[in-house]
Amino acid sequence: MKNRLSKLQASLQTNTSAAVLVSSVPNITYLTGFSGFSKEDRDAFLFITKEKPYLLTHGIYKEVAEKHIANFELMQITREDPPGKTIKKLIRKHAVTKLGYEHFDLKVAEYHAFCKQIDPKLLSPINLLTALRIIKTAEEIQLIKKACELGDKAFSYIIKKLKAGMTEKEVASDIDVSIKKLGGDSSFPTIVAFGSNASRPHHVPTERKLQLGDMVLLDFGAKLNNYCSDMTRTICFGKPTAKQKKVYQTVLAAQLAAIEYIVLSLLRRSQMPEWVQESTRKQYIKASQVDKIARNFIISKGFPNMPHSLGHGIGLEVHEAPRLSPSSKDVLKEGMVFSIEPGIYLADEMGVRIEDLFAIQDNQLIQLTNAPRELIEI
Amino acid sequence: MKNRLSKLQASLQTNTSAAVLVSSVPNITYLTGFSGFSKEDRDAFLFITKEKPYLLTHGIYKEVAEKHIANFELMQITREDPPGKTIKKLIRKHAVTKLGYEHFDLKVAEYHAFCKQIDPKLLSPINLLTALRIIKTAEEIQLIKKACELGDKAFSYIIKKLKAGMTEKEVASDIDVSIKKLGGDSSFPTIVAFGSNASRPHHVPTERKLQLGDMVLLDFGAKLNNYCSDMTRTICFGKPTAKQKKVYQTVLAAQLAAIEYIVLSLLRRSQMPEWVQESTRKQYIKASQVDKIARNFIISKGFPNMPHSLGHGIGLEVHEAPRLSPSSKDVLKEGMVFSIEPGIYLADEMGVRIEDLFAIQDNQLIQLTNAPRELIEI
Repeated sequence: MKNRLSKLQASLQTNTSAAVLVSSVPNITYLTGFSGFSKEDRDAFLFITKEKPYLLTHGIYKEVAEKHIANFELMQITREDPPGKTIKKLIRKHAVTKLGYEHFDLKVAEYHAFCKQIDPKLLSPINLLTALRIIKTAEEIQLIKKACELGDKAFSYIIKKLKAGMTEKEVASDIDVSIKKLGGDSSFPTIVAFGSNASRPHHVPTERKLQLGDMVLLDFGAKLNNYCSDMTRTICFGKPTAKQKKVYQTVLAAQLAAIEYIVLSLLRRSQMPEWVQESTRKQYIKASQVDKIARNFIISKGFPNMPHSLGHGIGLEVHEAPRLSPSSKDVLKEGMVFSIEPGIYLADEMGVRIEDLFAIQDNQLIQLTNAPRELIEI
Repeated sequence: MKNRLSKLQASLQTNTSAAVLVSSVPNITYLTGFSGFSKEDRDAFLFITKEKPYLLTHGIYKEVAEKHIANFELMQITREDPPGKTIKKLIRKHAVTKLGYEHFDLKVAEYHAFCKQIDPKLLSPINLLTALRIIKTAEEIQLIKKACELGDKAFSYIIKKLKAGMTEKEVASDIDVSIKKLGGDSSFPTIVAFGSNASRPHHVPTERKLQLGDMVLLDFGAKLNNYCSDMTRTICFGKPTAKQKKVYQTVLAAQLAAIEYIVLSLLRRSQMPEWVQESTRKQYIKASQVDKIARNFIISKGFPNMPHSLGHGIGLEVHEAPRLSPSSKDVLKEGMVFSIEPGIYLADEMGVRIEDLFAIQDNQLIQLTNAPRELIEI
């Protein structure tokens, strides 16, 4: 954590009058290791200068802050003594002439309240932590892998438990319970969709009962030690029809095409002669290109275009940088962890999605989720 | 849901050029009944004029929106075609001269993006739904009661399961699993604190093992059909010491004092002669006064001041209006649902909190949580 804080402090302007106000809960977790602040209520801010980090939080967190976030100086805030005043004091104390704030997280009302205490000219939108968090350390990749292993176990548990007549809600609850029993938490609301319900990528589980011939789409993840996993499998309850098989194989082939592209690109990049410019080398694997390969493969087989991105980064949050989408400007690099999850959705008929997590580590594409990917018939 | 929408539309200016942009996920759930939009990603907005409601959402929600939110006209937004453009179109179409937005929910970056499309002079911060949501219908109170009953069941399950050597994490997981098995979800991260750990009101469960003589603080809630419950019990694992008993009885007496004050105030209000002005009648039960009664009771017995509010409203969210705190301006009224949760926290020693949910219905204070409140010894 101290290393992360130092990196952030180093990325502040060399101008010592710059400071950053961190409000995003995952960013606070990233810098402090503490994940107990509420995401619904605003419980804490970090105020960080080049020299010194502060934690602004409510009295109810005093003991926990002193114990777990000892390297940050604690400044108590209350509903009666809002953070703007404390921030103003810190600005004066450190003669800060520019305070970066997380515009992607701070609410307009909070910003307006700050502006009553602080000269708005001092405030400047900033996003320093995305660039740090997008590159995972080996330790972080290991934590995500552990969460993925938990997800794999929950998957092998649930496919043994599926029975005709179970509802989507029951299956989702069984997955959540099995994740809990394995020591984790669900990293997002579990999606279970039977048959035609799977044509909605973000289907919310219903009382629909499992019938012979249904395909079953399961999209879930575990959170373990603050790090998330995410996986999707679509299985067949009964013998698949020719169409179910074809759709499934097309989705799988689209995923494999994207994987192959990254693997070959990594190989090519590692074999580039020395005269290739660093800028070329760095820009080598465009996330948008990976998306395009899977997307166009699906379209080329006569199926509809995916209504979602091919993939997303993952870590402390289920969705974080990079994005693998047509409009993404991200480039896939060493240390990134992301999903590859193509899908085919046929309205009122069926849906298939296959999702796995991958890391780029030691110039290799490492698959972190390892549940079987061939079409499972139950 | 249609009734709620009509009320919101009625609360828009009689001026037909006014519209409101709803971004808060619980507010969207309140108006549509649909709770499937992500709280982490911005998946949807409602744009509501006096005449017509629109739902702006991504393609992946198209089918679900058409099915479950049929009375809203669907406008598709994408990452490439951000909501600002669509909102601009709707502003033109309806000749809107003033658009209220939820400044307590919208991020600064989103606001800045809107301002690239929409004249900032058109935008005005607004909070119309808090005033609607703070007053629950009988049906909503019933839903919260059902969630409370689930919580009561989880409590009676867990106290039978407690054994020396169990860790806080294990107990928290057992509570979560039992809530799941009963058909609900945990409405917030379950707090389990043994012995001195309970002196931190927002303690995060650890590997600490349960020992004879520990008090056990359990703070958890269930979410069922979108509505939340919340309860806290502190029990004694072994025979309580004189001090444990005294602290417990003081907290319980503080809660009962607050309850008594509300009950008597309701009675007095109902018995007010007709000549009492409506304004007096309406302002009768100040939430800050209820907080004060419990708070001062605890202080009067020589214990430290509570580091948190006495209570909070609850409904679609665990924390919503009203607030029962020293600085609250809220008045307790018919249809409100809230917690009363005094606590005593002695650093490095112990903590006791007792929390129940109450509704004001038919001018009565109805207790919604019903787990036993005498000091349980296990």
